[in-house]
Amino acid sequence: MSQILVVGSLAYDSIKTPAGSVHRTLGGSANYFSLAASLFAKIRVVGVVGDDYAESDYQLLSSRNVDMTGLEKVPGKTFHWEGSYHEDMNEAVTLRTDLNVFEYFNPRLPNSYRDSEFVFLANISPDLQLKVLEQVENPRFVGMDTMNFWINSKITDLNKVLGKVDLLLINEGEAQMLTGANNAISAAPLICAKGPRYAVIKRGEYGFVLYSKEEGFFMLPAMPIPTVVDPTGAGDTFAGGFFGYLASRNGNINFHELKMACVHGTMMASFTIQDFGVASLQNITKRDLEKRLTEFKRVISL
Amino acid sequence: MSQILVVGSLAYDSIKTPAGSVHRTLGGSANYFSLAASLFAKIRVVGVVGDDYAESDYQLLSSRNVDMTGLEKVPGKTFHWEGSYHEDMNEAVTLRTDLNVFEYFNPRLPNSYRDSEFVFLANISPDLQLKVLEQVENPRFVGMDTMNFWINSKITDLNKVLGKVDLLLINEGEAQMLTGANNAISAAPLICAKGPRYAVIKRGEYGFVLYSKEEGFFMLPAMPIPTVVDPTGAGDTFAGGFFGYLASRNGNINFHELKMACVHGTMMASFTIQDFGVASLQNITKRDLEKRLTEFKRVISL
Repeated sequence: MSQILVVGSLAYDSIKTPAGSVHRTLGGSANYFSLAASLFAKIRVVGVVGDDYAESDYQLLSSRNVDMTGLEKVPGKTFHWEGSYHEDMNEAVTLRTDLNVFEYFNPRLPNSYRDSEFVFLANISPDLQLKVLEQVENPRFVGMDTMNFWINSKITDLNKVLGKVDLLLINEGEAQMLTGANNAISAAPLICAKGPRYAVIKRGEYGFVLYSKEEGFFMLPAMPIPTVVDPTGAGDTFAGGFFGYLASRNGNINFHELKMACVHGTMMASFTIQDFGVASLQNITKRDLEKRLTEFKRVISL
Repeated sequence: MSQILVVGSLAYDSIKTPAGSVHRTLGGSANYFSLAASLFAKIRVVGVVGDDYAESDYQLLSSRNVDMTGLEKVPGKTFHWEGSYHEDMNEAVTLRTDLNVFEYFNPRLPNSYRDSEFVFLANISPDLQLKVLEQVENPRFVGMDTMNFWINSKITDLNKVLGKVDLLLINEGEAQMLTGANNAISAAPLICAKGPRYAVIKRGEYGFVLYSKEEGFFMLPAMPIPTVVDPTGAGDTFAGGFFGYLASRNGNINFHELKMACVHGTMMASFTIQDFGVASLQNITKRDLEKRLTEFKRVISL
């Protein structure tokens, strides 16, 4: 089975939504990604936590066979994010960001990680994404995420990373910000003109758009979920389902497999939003996934 | 072939979008609906225009074999709407509404219309929708649209109409306003609890949600269109494609046919938004439609 390397944040989140609130629950892109992807494949994490990081939170990933050799623990506090969602569950309002130990994060890959075949550069500073990429020997498929903050403050580095990856996985609003386009359909080809062979634009409750220069568009809505409890981490869960599926396939990475990867991403994300933080994600079985996939196919089939 | 009765507005629209602007171009729900539906079926229009309504605008519908016996011409000016779209092409900003002759519209059906099998009550006052419905003898399938203005000002009458129709076809924002739900997935069952067997929620560039109590959800994105020139009339065009397809089928009205009706609606709407007003809609052939349908199926197929 192929190995997936992920670099991203491990965090504690304080979240308020119309469904309730949680204080300092486990979060961060690397956690959501790893919990989703480990259902399919072997995961290697690169990241940093503070000395307040709970033993049970280590245990959660190691119980899923996630390799944490590349996880540094340093003196200080773990990254903390506080945010809220109002009527529009598609967009979080950030109330507070405490970078803490994440501010001085300098990702160093253990030697045992260098042969990773799949790499996901979650939403961190583009210069750190580049540093990680330089330490991987010969990856087969590299994907990345980014956000408004890096688009505004580090566009030169960001364009450099875009020139080195196979896939950009990005939110719709940020895809528009990056390209100047006013919708996902016109943004996707402009993303690919910056380097990536593939673009996946995440549309929240409206699903996703997959685009490749050669194959054009593939689009589907998200799984219908009547009550969204907490959308935090849905995008990173999508990425985890996407990469997990892809790494589990062993065969060629063709457009059909990328379509299926998107569908698996959206299925996994549909679990995440049904509870706060990683609560529902940590209990999902392959059987739950298969059941939901069957439902989803019914919902989108003519 | 079955006959479709439509009651709605015939109007002149002045529209500004990022792509340009038009002054007093032909518009109104009944025009968009009829132009789309007449590609599939025979249409009967009920509506009112002023003495400024151009002969060429009559000709446009009659050249499509639309029956205009029920179209009244009265002294005064035709309904006029002025609106603009900014970055978010999903929502129009109304700058001016001149109801003109539409203010005293009292729909009377010619006897020849009373046996109509399919009825579409476009977005007009719910008491007028009721009046139209009372004049149809034994319709097979009735659909309606509505908007925020009637939800706020005439909810009692609106609930009465909802109790008498088979389908509510409504924008996502207005579906939420009508039901108090905060997304389309939770709104749809609440709509059906008000009477209609089916709900279709229009999501603009994100496509549509079809729901029935017995069959559950069916959802797809819209056709990917990189450059949206003018979204005005997209919803009424969707309704026209939907009803036109359904009326052309002759067989049972089952969930599969309703799915296909939604797809035909979204295909027709994808033409409307590519030019101002009814410009692109009036030239579409069945061949154009078939070609786009083939493309669309490729875009949504695993």
